[in-house]
This record gives sequence, structure tokens and C-alpha cells, in this order.
Amino acid sequence: MTASEIRALFSVASRPEVVSLAGGSPYVSALPMDAVAETLADLVARRGAVALQYATAQGDELLREQVCEVMAPEGIDGHPDDVVMTTGSQQALDLVTRIFVDPGDVVLAEAPSYVGALQVFRSYQADVVHVPMDDKGLEPVALEEAIQHLRAQGRQLAFLYTIPSFHNPAGTSQPESRREEVLEVCRRHDVLVIEDDPYGLLGFDGDPYRALRADDPEGVIYLGSFSKTFAPGLRVGWALAPHAVREKLVLASEATQLCPSSFSQLAVSSYLSTQDWRGQVDVYRDLYRQRRDATLEALTATMPEGTTWTHPLGGFYVWVTLPEGFDTRVMLPRAVTARVAFVPGSAFFADGSGARSMRLSYCLPEPARIREGVRRLAGVIEEELSMRELFGPAPSHGAAHDGDAPAPDLA
Amino acid sequence: MTASEIRALFSVASRPEVVSLAGGSPYVSALPMDAVAETLADLVARRGAVALQYATAQGDELLREQVCEVMAPEGIDGHPDDVVMTTGSQQALDLVTRIFVDPGDVVLAEAPSYVGALQVFRSYQADVVHVPMDDKGLEPVALEEAIQHLRAQGRQLAFLYTIPSFHNPAGTSQPESRREEVLEVCRRHDVLVIEDDPYGLLGFDGDPYRALRADDPEGVIYLGSFSKTFAPGLRVGWALAPHAVREKLVLASEATQLCPSSFSQLAVSSYLSTQDWRGQVDVYRDLYRQRRDATLEALTATMPEGTTWTHPLGGFYVWVTLPEGFDTRVMLPRAVTARVAFVPGSAFFADGSGARSMRLSYCLPEPARIREGVRRLAGVIEEELSMRELFGPAPSHGAAHDGDAPAPDLA
Repeated sequence: MTASEIRALFSVASRPEVVSLAGGSPYVSALPMDAVAETLADLVARRGAVALQYATAQGDELLREQVCEVMAPEGIDGHPDDVVMTTGSQQALDLVTRIFVDPGDVVLAEAPSYVGALQVFRSYQADVVHVPMDDKGLEPVALEEAIQHLRAQGRQLAFLYTIPSFHNPAGTSQPESRREEVLEVCRRHDVLVIEDDPYGLLGFDGDPYRALRADDPEGVIYLGSFSKTFAPGLRVGWALAPHAVREKLVLASEATQLCPSSFSQLAVSSYLSTQDWRGQVDVYRDLYRQRRDATLEALTATMPEGTTWTHPLGGFYVWVTLPEGFDTRVMLPRAVTARVAFVPGSAFFADGSGARSMRLSYCLPEPARIREGVRRLAGVIEEELSMRELFGPAPSHGAAHDGDAPAPDLA
Repeated sequence: MTASEIRALFSVASRPEVVSLAGGSPYVSALPMDAVAETLADLVARRGAVALQYATAQGDELLREQVCEVMAPEGIDGHPDDVVMTTGSQQALDLVTRIFVDPGDVVLAEAPSYVGALQVFRSYQADVVHVPMDDKGLEPVALEEAIQHLRAQGRQLAFLYTIPSFHNPAGTSQPESRREEVLEVCRRHDVLVIEDDPYGLLGFDGDPYRALRADDPEGVIYLGSFSKTFAPGLRVGWALAPHAVREKLVLASEATQLCPSSFSQLAVSSYLSTQDWRGQVDVYRDLYRQRRDATLEALTATMPEGTTWTHPLGGFYVWVTLPEGFDTRVMLPRAVTARVAFVPGSAFFADGSGARSMRLSYCLPEPARIREGVRRLAGVIEEELSMRELFGPAPSHGAAHDGDAPAPDLA
């Protein structure tokens, strides 16, 4: 499939009759729209001349203070001076990569990793080396081996990119002991860590995990976002970075866009000040927990033997792996015809692996739709199995990779 | 002066007692804030689930249609499919540069040129070659010579970056015959043109100029913005590009930020649909015309002999050149002490020239403040002249350049 074929496919997948388990769009309909409308109108009426004007490249000072409060539950003791507001955390990742990556440098990332990050790394001609995960996330021993191997080859290592909590797409989380091990390996080998944490507050049970950044302010650049805890349409994210990096981020941001939207920043700031944002996070957590449950129950009820999946404790995604011989890219057009969409696993690897896997997102559809979607998906898989009994396995796309495909998170 | 010294200086310059003729912030207080507030509240109440959600990387379809209407008065017959919405036109310039510039490539730009553009070109390690201007803007003969010279040297020429209408910082505009000559030179030598046009609708008399893009859809990438015709705080700009480039822009934008803010885009779209945006542009034009007049009258009344300045027919800026021996960078701290700020001319050159010049912005302060600011500036210049009569000229900073200084447009 070419980029334009995938684009065409996802365009079909966005039709209302298709259950899309593909995109990563949060369920913003759960927001109190009237209160948000009032907050924004009030912002323009009271502070329009500021909200509609240029701002500083680093971002609004009050919002940077509020961001520090938002990070506190994850154990982060950040200073507003070290926060840089960005156009979504995607832009923060783009700027960090621009600063640290020269063409041919290695970026370490989980296997699988966030497709939007791979797109950034590719655009700066980084060489992504995947590090295996188990059900506790990134494997420290494998990380250690990868670093040693790369250093022995004389490769330039830019950083480790990791999503410790509620991983996209894997759905796994690093327990705290695992986090300590990962940090220890990186510290020992002097490897910078980029911690991407858009879902950190969206755990389904108990307190949030302790962020990597909480235990290593100098070795970790932390990326945060309001896209999942509030709303992505405003494009407000941030980086919390050691002082010297923060300076570079501000200059790079200024060259890129002059400044992030003052309106969006003040909108988020007003929302945090005037609305019960913590209560809203709880609303989201309940909602996504129910959808996670619906997904797992439906998978248990319908998937053929030999299929495995992860059991996310938060976030938006389940990672499903089919029995030997499947190629989810080949299966996707058939699935869309059966009115269900997912993202093929190979999208989440820089090297085209992941053919047997797929990412299912449970964030946007209602539970009943999720159950129906998984049922349809099981039907497609069963059909595929019957075909294989009759005709043998379909030819795989092998090491094909997504090239310039559109970011499936927007599908 | 180092970047941090300049930053400190502009921080002082932002105090209310200082008349800032430095920044490029539009006078957004002229907007009908109540109507804007109502428009945004209505947007969230009616279409919150779309406005607060992710969108496509290319941008909202209706807004792209409206953008084509906005460009029509400049003779542009654009198709919505060829428009890419961006986070301000600064981002469009960043993406275009990312696509077309490899380190060491040459970018041709007017002498002087927009400081934010120079910052982008520097960040991609382009080599900026300035082409002289006269009172009709870019000189075609000099452009021809520069191209021939560079080609003879075997240099890779990425594009010509030009601001044909109401130039920032020069305040000049290319008459239509000049535009034809510039296009003819570029076509003959197969040089891509980046036309930056944020001020095109803000002419003080008669109809807008015909855009370069109007006469060469394949050879020109046009950059537009709502920052000056509506409000910069929403960060909504666009590129109109030939089809093959448009595809690349969308992919680069997606890697950079996933998508531009849907909220900002729909806010602009609603504003264009429900408010008298053309009437608002006329309000801005009248307002800036009065401020331009106040600036020119004050310059005529107070500047010492040997000082020259441009006579802008639109836009935000007057370019003032002092007699031989002045260095406006050296003068700036003294000016700020005298409670007036400007941007030194050297900020607008990649090669540190422009020492005798400065940019005065008349967009933000009221006319009475402008007159007071120019009077203070004249005092500083007179003092400088007296000092030179007593002690001889101050040592110049020569080829010093602004390096990583903050974008003065935000000052």
C-alpha cells in the first residue's frame, strides 16, 4: 500500500458506518461545552487584546506555573522557567529532535513506538533502533545491550525516546522498579531520555505513576500535553527541560512559529483556573476504563486461539497480535470493507516489522460500537483463517514500511 | 550586544513608559471584542466536538475555500486543494525552508529582509545572499547579476524570498511593472519564488497590488496570514503552493505538529462568515494610515539633515537611515534610556550590514505616542551628533550580527 492508498483507505474508514478503532482522538464530547464556551467568551471579553495578540516564544507565565501543578501528581518538581509551551507536544518532540539529531544519528525507541514520533525521527534522517518491550514495557537488559552494541560500532546516539505510562501503541506501563532500571542504564551510559507522557494522568486505578523526570531532572526532557486531559483542538503541549536545553527550545520555537498561540494558551489557563479540570480528568478516566473493559471483553469473547493482546491500565490503546502468518496490512482493506478499521502494526516500527500486530483504539467509540467493531474484526480474522486452510497463507508485504503515510492517529 | 543583552533591553523596552517603535504587533484592540467573544462561544456551543478535536494536517476545508476568497483581491485564482493551513505563516516559511534548503544552499533575499525569515534560514544553515532594493523594492538587474554570479560559482540556489508589498522592514512596495521584471528574471533562471504577503490587504490607498503568485502559479509559493488582517494570537496562516509542493508541505506539517489548531481555524472561519471582515480590514487600514502619517510628519519635523526614510504605502514599518558614522545598535541602549525603542538595522541583514539604519513600527502606538517617540529618538540622535562633534565618532560594532537574538517583531 502506498501513502495515498492508505490515505484513501482511512478516508473510507472515517465514514459513520465504519467502526474506527484506528484513530487516537479523545472523546471531547465529554467536555462541559457550555462552560468551555463561557470561559472562552469571557477570556475574549476581558483580555481580548492579550489573547488575540502575539506572545512570547516560551509561553504564558501563569500557564507555565499551572503546568507545574499538572505535573506534580507524577512526582515532578518543575520550575515554570524550565517549561516551554508548544503547539501540541508533537511540536516539542519536533524541536527536541531538531536540536539533538544530525542525519544518521541513532534514536532508541521502544518496539513498537508512537507513529508520530517515528515520522519526526524520519524527517530528520535519524536511524531508529528499536528496543524490545515485555509486559512491563522497555526491557532494561535489551536497552543496555543496544547501547553497548551501538557504541562499539561508534554510532552517535542522540537519545532514548520512551513512553513509560500507558504506551502508544503497546498499551503497557513501566512499573516503578522498571523505571529505576531504565534510568540507571541511561545514566550509566550518559544517554539523554525523552519521556513522552500524554496519558500519565489517565490511569484507570489509583495514583499516577512516578514520571522518569521526577528522579532525573538533568537527564530527562519531559513532554506533556493537554490534548488528552482537556482537548487536542487547541494544540497546547509543553516540554520541561534542563536549563540549557530550554534556551535552545525557545529559540527553535521562535524560528518555527514566532510563538505558540496566545489564545490557545490563555484558553487552557482559564479552563484550569475556572473549571474543575481534575474532575474532568476523572470523567475521562471512568469513560476510558469502561471502553477498555468493553474492548478486552469483546476480544476475549471473539478472538481465535493464538491471538494475544495487552491489558492497558490507562490510556487509549490495546496492542493485538495475531497468530503466525497474518499480515495486518494485507488484512486492512478487507476489514474496512467489513466496516471496522485499525492501524496495522508495521506503522509503529521504523523497520517494517510488526506485521502480525495491530493497534486498537478504544478512546472515541461508545462501548456498544467497540463491541460491534471487535465482532466484525473477529469475523475478518476467521475468514482469513478459513482462506488459509483452503489456499495456504497470503503473500506477506514483508519488510514494507509506511514511508510517507499519513499519521494514523488522525485517522 | 549578545542575545541575552538584547533580550534584557527589549524587556525594559516593554515597560509602559517606553514608546516602543520596535515590535510588529498589530493593534488588535481595534477588533469588535464582544462580537468576537460571541462568535467563539457560539462555535464551542454548536461545534465544540469538532473545534476541540484533532483535524486534518492540511487544514479545514471551508477555511481553505475562504482563504481563496481572501486572496482573490490580489488577483490570485487559487484552489482550496492547493492551500495548506499553518500555525502562522512563519510555520509555512519554516516548512518550505525545511523542504527546499540543504545546509550551504543559497537563499536570495532583499537587503534588508524580515528578521524572522533570516532566523528560519539560519536554523537550516542556508547561506543568505542579499539583493539590493531601491524605492521600488527588489532591483531586477541586481537580482539577475546575483543569480548569474552564484550559478557561475556552482552554488545551489534554493529560492528567492521576497516581500513585494509593504515590505518588512523596508516599507517599500514593488509597483506592478517591477513585479513583472522580477518574475521574468526568476522564470528565465528557473528560480523558485517564495512570496511572503502578510500585509497585502493593508494598503492605504486604492486597490491591493497584484500578487506575484497571480501571474505564476507554478513558480511561486505564496505565504499568507490572518495575523495582520484579523489577529495574530490565533496563529493562523497558510501556504498556497503548486500541487507537488503542497503534498510535501502537508507531510512536513504533520510530522511537526500533527495538525494546525482546529479551534483557531474554525474561529477564523466563523469570524470570516459571520463578521464584516472586509470592514475590519478597512478599519485597520485607516488606523495604520493615520499612524504612518504621524510617523512621517514627526520624522520630517525632527530628524537632522542627512537622515532619510522610506514612505510606506501600507503595512507597519518605516526604514530610517541616519547619516554616515551612526551605529544604531550602539545607540539602542541610549534610546531605551530616553524611553523610546526601535529595531537596529543590522537585525535585518544576515551579514551584519545596516548599521546606519533602523526600523520604526507605527502599528501599535497611538499617533500622539508615535510623535512623542520620534521626538525622543531625535533627541538621542542630536545628542549623538553633539558627542561626535566633541569626541569624534563612536566605535562601530562593524560586522557584528544578531546571532541568536530574539525576534524583534515580538519586542
